[in-house]
Amino acid sequence: MLFENGRKRGDTVSGYKVAILGASGAVGRMMVKVLEERNFPVRDLKLLATERSAGKKIDFHGEKLTIEVAHPDQFKGYDLALFSAGSSVSRSIALEAVKRGCVVIDNSNAWRMEPDVPLVVPEVNPEELENHRGIIANPNCSTIQMVVALKPIKDRFGLSRIIVSTYQAVSGTGLRAIEELKSQSLHMLNGETKEPEVYPYPIAFNLLPHIDTFSENGYSREEMKMINETRKILKDPKIKIAATAVRVPVFYGHSESIYIKTIEPAEVIEIRQVLSKAPGVVVYDNLEKLQYPMPNLVEDNDQVWVGRIRRDLDEDCGYHLWVVANNLRKGAATNAVQIGEELMKRGLL
Amino acid sequence: MLFENGRKRGDTVSGYKVAILGASGAVGRMMVKVLEERNFPVRDLKLLATERSAGKKIDFHGEKLTIEVAHPDQFKGYDLALFSAGSSVSRSIALEAVKRGCVVIDNSNAWRMEPDVPLVVPEVNPEELENHRGIIANPNCSTIQMVVALKPIKDRFGLSRIIVSTYQAVSGTGLRAIEELKSQSLHMLNGETKEPEVYPYPIAFNLLPHIDTFSENGYSREEMKMINETRKILKDPKIKIAATAVRVPVFYGHSESIYIKTIEPAEVIEIRQVLSKAPGVVVYDNLEKLQYPMPNLVEDNDQVWVGRIRRDLDEDCGYHLWVVANNLRKGAATNAVQIGEELMKRGLL
Repeated sequence: MLFENGRKRGDTVSGYKVAILGASGAVGRMMVKVLEERNFPVRDLKLLATERSAGKKIDFHGEKLTIEVAHPDQFKGYDLALFSAGSSVSRSIALEAVKRGCVVIDNSNAWRMEPDVPLVVPEVNPEELENHRGIIANPNCSTIQMVVALKPIKDRFGLSRIIVSTYQAVSGTGLRAIEELKSQSLHMLNGETKEPEVYPYPIAFNLLPHIDTFSENGYSREEMKMINETRKILKDPKIKIAATAVRVPVFYGHSESIYIKTIEPAEVIEIRQVLSKAPGVVVYDNLEKLQYPMPNLVEDNDQVWVGRIRRDLDEDCGYHLWVVANNLRKGAATNAVQIGEELMKRGLL
Repeated sequence: MLFENGRKRGDTVSGYKVAILGASGAVGRMMVKVLEERNFPVRDLKLLATERSAGKKIDFHGEKLTIEVAHPDQFKGYDLALFSAGSSVSRSIALEAVKRGCVVIDNSNAWRMEPDVPLVVPEVNPEELENHRGIIANPNCSTIQMVVALKPIKDRFGLSRIIVSTYQAVSGTGLRAIEELKSQSLHMLNGETKEPEVYPYPIAFNLLPHIDTFSENGYSREEMKMINETRKILKDPKIKIAATAVRVPVFYGHSESIYIKTIEPAEVIEIRQVLSKAPGVVVYDNLEKLQYPMPNLVEDNDQVWVGRIRRDLDEDCGYHLWVVANNLRKGAATNAVQIGEELMKRGLL
């Protein structure tokens, strides 16, 4: 028996001591699942959350682990911590964990734009990990899938412009939003109404062009994240990016309608070829066979699916793509675990 | 009693003899409702459809009208026919109706791009009606709401570029699609699966970047309609337009994320002012009060709602808008009835 309630059994066992903060949430639970699926070498897994979730149990490799209340000393002796709490929790506790010797991979917005914090998508900019000082930021879900699809195109043809409209699943908001979409849908189908609790307006059979809060320039913070994080990850502060972020009544899987301008002209078939060889990408783009990415295709996988690749009809170097990925997996938990794997590979853990 | 089963009662009664082809469908039923709501001066309403729907009854001003089987002679003596049948039916029967003295307002794709057929949105290009030869085409739903929002901007600041991503409701496909979304949602919420019948893939809690069929250039016909029809309606064959059309699990109301480039620079407040005075437009754009257009706001109205108006952060003359309208109303039935009203006003009926 290797794991039990975060306590280590036997010093000779190899692997890392891993803690997950926010383990009871949608992303936290997925982190546990992905660590298991990918056989990340864990010799001790500690699950942490607020008092409200303490005592809940989560399966890991066949064992029931109990969630404990998070406090700084919980990270003592741990090698790696995956954080999926809010930004304010991350701000207050991440440095405490680092001080105690832990490398933190943080899924919140707290550290992403700090100049000395690497913001990493392993398929795109793994080399940034070399400079880490204890905290590594996991990008926003919508950003991750976009840069996985666009980086190979940028490397081959250059990239000067991105205009993206998103179609984002409710699981990005969390478990309560998943419940809200379920119960609201049932109520509406029965001709009843139910006051929304998680979102300001009904999400069932509706859409909200509103993700996170709004900033003064008229953009939502989600839209600004996509703009700023993409520039940082692609190391191109001048790339022109605009985003419109929209919440849709889908449980899992974010979709993105993306317009790009490359610097060198490309044939559509060349873009398809480049993407076909790109890590983490599935080109699913055969209109005769009605093959195009959809959220229901990404429920159980970690790939970024790209389809509807076509040339703009009016502009040289203009192209349109449709990109779908599981926001809890590649957009959050899987990317975090992949960062952990990359740290291992590079001897940085 | 003025109306009964399409037969005229008393020659002295004023008003027009109106026929609706495809009266049993989602748009056809809405046409009946909108004629009633707007008090269109009907002295005789005849409802037509295929044999499958003949005998069904539909209320109009408190009377139950029975749907009859469509054939060319049904249009004899009628002033106006609103067509909402498929393209092939329109192609085969519209000229027959015109031959019998009827003005046809056709909601299908059959005639829209014919050079001598006016393609009209009354708020945008009503003057085109003057040249009609019997058939007037009602534009595609997604096109209508876009041009209502963009024409006032074009008139004031010029317009050189449109990139639009749509979020289209299932009612655009018809009554069977509404039923499919309902029953599929219920099944999925109960953990059951149900084979899709109307769409090639599940639409409940999913999205399909696929509306109408695909053409060889990689665009769907829906996307090409938006491109070609917008150019015709705005009388600007050179305007650069790209579209990505996506079906979403919403019953009523199409949404559009639109990027535009104007020719003259504009302040956002000027765009808001121009749109506030524009016919048929509601500017609903106050982020502090969380006011932005959503499909659930347009269920019972005919306006085109515009919000999230903001400046592109990188490009002069670049702006982003979010536009929502009821696809069965302004996107179809209401626009057709408004064309009828405009014909009346101009003495063309």
